[in-house]
Amino acid sequence: MIRKVLVANRGEIAVRVMRSCREMGLRSVAIYSEADRTAMHVRYADEAYCVGPATSAESYLNIEKIIEVAKVSKSDAIHPGYGFLSENASFAEAVDKAGIIFIGPSIHAINTMGDKLTARQLMIESGVPVVPGTKENIDDPKKLKTIAAEIGYPIMLKASAGGGGKGMRLVREEKDLVNAYNMAKSEARSAFGDDAVYMEKYIESPHHIEFQIMADQHGNYVHLFERECSVQRRHQKVVEETPSPLMTPELRNKMGEQAIAAAKSVDYIGAGTVEFLVDNDHNFYFLEMNTRLQVEHPITERTTGVDLVKAQINVANGLPLEFKQDDLRQNGHAIECRIYAEDHKNNFMPCPGVVKNITEPMGLGMRTDGYVYEGYEIPFHYDPMISKVISWAPTRMEAIDRMKRALYEYKITGVKTSIPFVARIMEAKDFVEGNYDTHFIEKNMDFLMTEEDDCTDYCEDIALFVAYLDYTQKLKDAADKSNVATPNQSAWKEYARRKNILRL
Amino acid sequence: MIRKVLVANRGEIAVRVMRSCREMGLRSVAIYSEADRTAMHVRYADEAYCVGPATSAESYLNIEKIIEVAKVSKSDAIHPGYGFLSENASFAEAVDKAGIIFIGPSIHAINTMGDKLTARQLMIESGVPVVPGTKENIDDPKKLKTIAAEIGYPIMLKASAGGGGKGMRLVREEKDLVNAYNMAKSEARSAFGDDAVYMEKYIESPHHIEFQIMADQHGNYVHLFERECSVQRRHQKVVEETPSPLMTPELRNKMGEQAIAAAKSVDYIGAGTVEFLVDNDHNFYFLEMNTRLQVEHPITERTTGVDLVKAQINVANGLPLEFKQDDLRQNGHAIECRIYAEDHKNNFMPCPGVVKNITEPMGLGMRTDGYVYEGYEIPFHYDPMISKVISWAPTRMEAIDRMKRALYEYKITGVKTSIPFVARIMEAKDFVEGNYDTHFIEKNMDFLMTEEDDCTDYCEDIALFVAYLDYTQKLKDAADKSNVATPNQSAWKEYARRKNILRL
Repeated sequence: MIRKVLVANRGEIAVRVMRSCREMGLRSVAIYSEADRTAMHVRYADEAYCVGPATSAESYLNIEKIIEVAKVSKSDAIHPGYGFLSENASFAEAVDKAGIIFIGPSIHAINTMGDKLTARQLMIESGVPVVPGTKENIDDPKKLKTIAAEIGYPIMLKASAGGGGKGMRLVREEKDLVNAYNMAKSEARSAFGDDAVYMEKYIESPHHIEFQIMADQHGNYVHLFERECSVQRRHQKVVEETPSPLMTPELRNKMGEQAIAAAKSVDYIGAGTVEFLVDNDHNFYFLEMNTRLQVEHPITERTTGVDLVKAQINVANGLPLEFKQDDLRQNGHAIECRIYAEDHKNNFMPCPGVVKNITEPMGLGMRTDGYVYEGYEIPFHYDPMISKVISWAPTRMEAIDRMKRALYEYKITGVKTSIPFVARIMEAKDFVEGNYDTHFIEKNMDFLMTEEDDCTDYCEDIALFVAYLDYTQKLKDAADKSNVATPNQSAWKEYARRKNILRL
Repeated sequence: MIRKVLVANRGEIAVRVMRSCREMGLRSVAIYSEADRTAMHVRYADEAYCVGPATSAESYLNIEKIIEVAKVSKSDAIHPGYGFLSENASFAEAVDKAGIIFIGPSIHAINTMGDKLTARQLMIESGVPVVPGTKENIDDPKKLKTIAAEIGYPIMLKASAGGGGKGMRLVREEKDLVNAYNMAKSEARSAFGDDAVYMEKYIESPHHIEFQIMADQHGNYVHLFERECSVQRRHQKVVEETPSPLMTPELRNKMGEQAIAAAKSVDYIGAGTVEFLVDNDHNFYFLEMNTRLQVEHPITERTTGVDLVKAQINVANGLPLEFKQDDLRQNGHAIECRIYAEDHKNNFMPCPGVVKNITEPMGLGMRTDGYVYEGYEIPFHYDPMISKVISWAPTRMEAIDRMKRALYEYKITGVKTSIPFVARIMEAKDFVEGNYDTHFIEKNMDFLMTEEDDCTDYCEDIALFVAYLDYTQKLKDAADKSNVATPNQSAWKEYARRKNILRL
């Protein structure tokens, strides 16, 4: 049985994994780069080992060094978190060779799902729907219409060597097909020196909906329902929620069954996520399977009551799942907002730096998974996500209201954060009505960039309050009270006026 | 409809009430004493008004001034929180006279339940069981045996004018009765100059179990199950949990029905709590009804999903309850630990002062309701409770493990707190086994006072970490690195050794 877990990660996910270890009575071992010696996960762990310089390649991706630390610390198991080495089959292999338990699926599952074409082929064989299309070059123009008719309009022509929208053509009707094909081909040739073109179904109003699955070593498979992840910016999720506003009980059952079929096709073990594209007519298509814990796993934990990290560790220990499909229920509604140290008004530029003051959201129905503290310097070497705020309530509208309350409470000074940006998402009509797809952020960008007057609160309130404290302290300290100057006096006065502090 | 709520309280409960106001789109108004100008509830509210000097009598109990602020701020309603004026009928009356909604029950209900003898009599008339006994002086020694036989042994003889254990005699068998009666009488006479003595049933292994009830203005009553509150020190609750380890579905139904009967007897409206004494044989007796929100209400919120403050405000608005008895479920297990700024090793002496560093517990299944922040000075004028930590998990054992994890995470420097004391409760065999009554703390005091080696962690870990940060900062800043002295070097070295920081 596992008694000591090395967490091969940093930031909020390292702390989150260690929390479950501690609750299970397991010792936890942190690894850290030279840039992370003051990081929360180092402080949280029972033991901590430096694995190299700041650069990820030399530290958090340094397989050899991490295995060495696992041996020195006598760790029985390694939890990879997400990102870094979590979906690296060579790492899983090296862990296995060192006689240490990898808390994750088999090397075969990681390899198969890591290769998009292999995974697609396997899904077709397993009867899991994929986005209809060819993937091979259509070199015979005569076949064009036949294939397009099979797939059904609208279709998208794509350059095989493509990227960045070049060599892409959306075709809505047969009459435009040949012309578009020729233009895509010629554009592909001049852009990539390769005129291979393939065709796939164009999904209108695509929703990104994923299913959490869990499997043990005894052939038991369950899904833990869906997560709606369509609020994305440049394919990066920003806000997730469960249940999905699009979902019906019938669609949930169908998609859940297919998610389990996908997992079974690779004899999956542990926690995994099957991502689907879903259109407004409830057609759904396999996108990919992530063979690790997701960033957004807390919304599933909140609505099902299951500790997914604990379940992962139990499965790695060879224990059967503690629940069957029929035991699982979706209770209420949960929303997660990812908070980044970034300046959305300056092209979402990351803003590392020293955190001066921080007040994190708390109270009824709130969960905040973070790792920064007052005085901590967020390093510029890693992902700028600093926390995840998760709200829960019996209904979706109450969960939104609770999230708005939480984002009002959440004050960070010293670095810019995306708190005002996600707060604005909670105000956007399409989001509030649950009427959105993956185009939501681009469609609403103007609205999301325009903060309401009240939003200045989010950043300035605590600064003003601190100025006010300084001022009262100075008043207290000063021998001659008339001699005290207030820094930022007009801002403070405005704050004081609003709070009626001048009445004192 | 209510649009602006004055919260006539301070500390964590003021912040907690304002959180629900904000989620409901209501403006909140803080009142504060001169000692509280930098308090979190002032910072949290939309508006804040000073009501007087530090002393409670001149500020938080100043009815006239609070009503004046309510009028000036155009508040529609007043939420009294707990303590202070929350069970003061004159306050409810003054609020009513001013044309403002009192978020609480009627003046009649407050008055009736506030008078212990009146409440006892009403319960007897309503068929709610009370502790059997006479309450009147037994002046005829011949009646002694008859009454005692009716009540059933063991019985307790108590001096009517009594207190502090004087004039009390426990009688287990009839043969000792007359002798005990004479001794109680003579002791009472010499102690109080009054030899009146009454008799009541002595409850062995008493459990303090209370039921949360909610009622609206349309005659709908529900109970939201029980809270086990037997972990008490000098009649002050320290740890609460739900469900009660003693409870059975049958007993829950019976007690729930009686709790509702108690509420109906005073036409109760809003949130209230009916407290019972329960013995090991599942006999239960009405103790009192608290006509306000309880400190420990969050464990009910966590297991039922109901926001009790929101429900209170909705009821005050005349809305019907959003749930019927059959809609309510107890989901999983919740535990609350109250955290005080006090030194349990020095007779639980309150320890007000400036909070230097604070890290509050977060993550899966945690709720922390607090109000102190880094640099905040806890005033000595008020109750020393600084926060409540609430853990939730599917099972009781997991909720205990999660609480232990939370208390490991919870670091406060600058003031002493009861964190190590409650952490020790989570380790006590009787608590872990759910085998405890109101004698638990006195019976286990030696164990609770003896911290395990590891517990020094709770207080020193962050101090060491901060010393370490200072040290690395000094190393960075110093021109001549050899010149740097580390404060508290041996302690820091021990910390560094444990965390392998010296390997850097």
